Amino acid sequence: MALIVQKFGGTSVGSVERIRNVARRVAKWKAAGHDLVVVPSAMAGETDRLIALARQIQALPDPRELDVVAATGEQVTIGLLAMALMDLGVKARSYTGWQVKIVSDSAHNKARIVSIDQQRIRADIHAGRVVVVAGFQGVDGHDNLTTLGRGGSDTSAVALAAALKADECHIYTDVDGVYTTDPRLVPEARRLRHVTFEEMIEMAGAGSKVLQIRAVEFAGKYRVPTRVLSSLTDPALPVEEEARSGTLITFEEDPHMAMEKAVISGVAFNRDEAKITVHDVPDRPGVAYAILGPIADSNIDVDVIVQNIGHDGMTDLSFTVHRTDYAKAMKLLKSQVQPHIKCRDVTGDDRIAKVSIVGMGMRSHAGIAAQMFRTLAEEGINIQMISTSEIKITVVIEEKYTELAVRVLHKAFELDQE
Amino acid sequence: MALIVQKFGGTSVGSVERIRNVARRVAKWKAAGHDLVVVPSAMAGETDRLIALARQIQALPDPRELDVVAATGEQVTIGLLAMALMDLGVKARSYTGWQVKIVSDSAHNKARIVSIDQQRIRADIHAGRVVVVAGFQGVDGHDNLTTLGRGGSDTSAVALAAALKADECHIYTDVDGVYTTDPRLVPEARRLRHVTFEEMIEMAGAGSKVLQIRAVEFAGKYRVPTRVLSSLTDPALPVEEEARSGTLITFEEDPHMAMEKAVISGVAFNRDEAKITVHDVPDRPGVAYAILGPIADSNIDVDVIVQNIGHDGMTDLSFTVHRTDYAKAMKLLKSQVQPHIKCRDVTGDDRIAKVSIVGMGMRSHAGIAAQMFRTLAEEGINIQMISTSEIKITVVIEEKYTELAVRVLHKAFELDQE
Repeated sequence: MALIVQKFGGTSVGSVERIRNVARRVAKWKAAGHDLVVVPSAMAGETDRLIALARQIQALPDPRELDVVAATGEQVTIGLLAMALMDLGVKARSYTGWQVKIVSDSAHNKARIVSIDQQRIRADIHAGRVVVVAGFQGVDGHDNLTTLGRGGSDTSAVALAAALKADECHIYTDVDGVYTTDPRLVPEARRLRHVTFEEMIEMAGAGSKVLQIRAVEFAGKYRVPTRVLSSLTDPALPVEEEARSGTLITFEEDPHMAMEKAVISGVAFNRDEAKITVHDVPDRPGVAYAILGPIADSNIDVDVIVQNIGHDGMTDLSFTVHRTDYAKAMKLLKSQVQPHIKCRDVTGDDRIAKVSIVGMGMRSHAGIAAQMFRTLAEEGINIQMISTSEIKITVVIEEKYTELAVRVLHKAFELDQE
Repeated sequence: MALIVQKFGGTSVGSVERIRNVARRVAKWKAAGHDLVVVPSAMAGETDRLIALARQIQALPDPRELDVVAATGEQVTIGLLAMALMDLGVKARSYTGWQVKIVSDSAHNKARIVSIDQQRIRADIHAGRVVVVAGFQGVDGHDNLTTLGRGGSDTSAVALAAALKADECHIYTDVDGVYTTDPRLVPEARRLRHVTFEEMIEMAGAGSKVLQIRAVEFAGKYRVPTRVLSSLTDPALPVEEEARSGTLITFEEDPHMAMEKAVISGVAFNRDEAKITVHDVPDRPGVAYAILGPIADSNIDVDVIVQNIGHDGMTDLSFTVHRTDYAKAMKLLKSQVQPHIKCRDVTGDDRIAKVSIVGMGMRSHAGIAAQMFRTLAEEGINIQMISTSEIKITVVIEEKYTELAVRVLHKAFELDQE
């Protein structure tokens, strides 16, 4: 008998029938003798609908009020899922983030979880209930509603698993595990049975979209055994079989497993970002901070940052932000940063894509970067920015080349072969 | 400079453009130097959509979880309205029921307000903000979300006005005041410039749909000057002019006003109820309680109750409940009450309508009931139940005769004439 936190994404709860299927799946685990805490996302499309409504009212929605609106999506799902469980004769109770309570900081739209009160959840588990908790949301120290940003339900689930010291965290999604790349783009993509925590961080960060990066960080920090599973399999699949499917995120590289491993584990990509370049800034200490400090203060996450060597005492600084932050970042830079640091210009481009190759094996193999760049050059794809880490190489390219780049890299690194 | 609570119904906030219009109207009152607390309903159709979703999941939705789902409608509107106000340069902040907090009892789906904490609202008013509070919802003593039942936003607004000792409570709706009857049914219907609190209670109770009865009771109990206004007039109408429009609910009958008053003020009707008859119950003390006690314990409101004189030691008891409670009430009576009191049968009909004539003048005029019954008889409309009060006569008839009955009564009592 284990305590399991199960998270279901927006597609998995996208209709009444799908919510019933989730309830059947949860009821099966409950019947097998396990304690369950279930974290559903908003019904597919609902968060987008709510944010679109807000943007029609205010071009740049007030962050506090946007959270008030956006948090309703998950609140609807927890109520419906609790009802669906009761309809199957399973005792259940729902909680919003503030009811739990899941305390976050006050960074609206992208808040971070500070603490989770276990009292109510423990009492309900003790009373034999399945506890349904709203993902994506929290409450700050002044009772303001907050949301954790896109994919935040993953973080909610893993954070709950960590706080409750759950035996496993199951992330049910519309794919059946972590793939070498997106199978919708590359039909030859293969499912990985294991992936290391480090690889997963790099792949999530590069936009593999299976699991939110903050969720993986939480899982790593608190060593929460986390499994990515499909919500599209038969809900009546025996629990033993279901427990072996999907992709398990591992924390240490098993030497035997490493032997089998390819150099590269996957190709990730992301079309959700925009590139910003600050031109001709004085090449002296403190300039990067003068540019990125105000950006950080506005709670805009910066991803890839590139600065070339200067010329004539001047240099250019480029970086990427999420597309939803693009307008805000550009406005901030033009109105506050440009007059202050006296750069020549601030330009941007929101038609870019980020493509990365990821792999633990990269550390012990030379020439991987060269092979990546040659593969792209052979297709005439220009590389606009390059950024590297121990186990990842990322390039920024024109958005229209995304599919082509992913396909040729997947083939070049033989990811289609077992 | 006054403190005004303004409530806007679902139609008034039914679209982005209408929410902007509400914001313009509120901004106008703010600019005229007033302090504003604004209570919006859910966008038109939204509460119905949410309840329909819940019913698809569970035929009789769990009351606690239904409130979790239903409360999101107003939460979306408060966020959007606060944004719309900020977009006009008006400082604003939204609060859900639990954030205020508006404490209610635990009677889910039809909770009653117990207390309202003024602290946060006062602080925001002091800071020059318009405070936007979610109607229809509260929180019980154990942090469970509750809703106040249909039309509950009216009650929220008047209760807030009472708690804050507001100078006026404005109920904006899609009609421009209280009419002698529904103008959609009877084109000759006239707007009443004043209506007494007592008449309003009877008309709201009989389903005139302008203002929820509990709201009127609150207004009466705490003497909150309440004005029913149209949200469809030009938002730029000068505040002085707007303040004179609509219908003001008065508390004492002004002798001069009484002189002018007709015998009957209005014809009200309601098609939201169902009739239940318990046949052949023993005609002895305690039987009415044995039947209606369990109904009340299940938080089902009973409206008209009729019991005829008995025959052979037996009698029939009939009463009406809201149609949404019909299935629940029938089930309860058949499974719990019938075996206990050993009545012959329990039958019901949800295709009925309730039609009432209301008027303070009725007290000093004889023959009003006779005139009402004759008017209906002349049209061949059978009366199924009759119930009377000091200033109201109510009949239950077949639903299909509703429009006809209202029209002929409106004409018979000369309500079309000033």
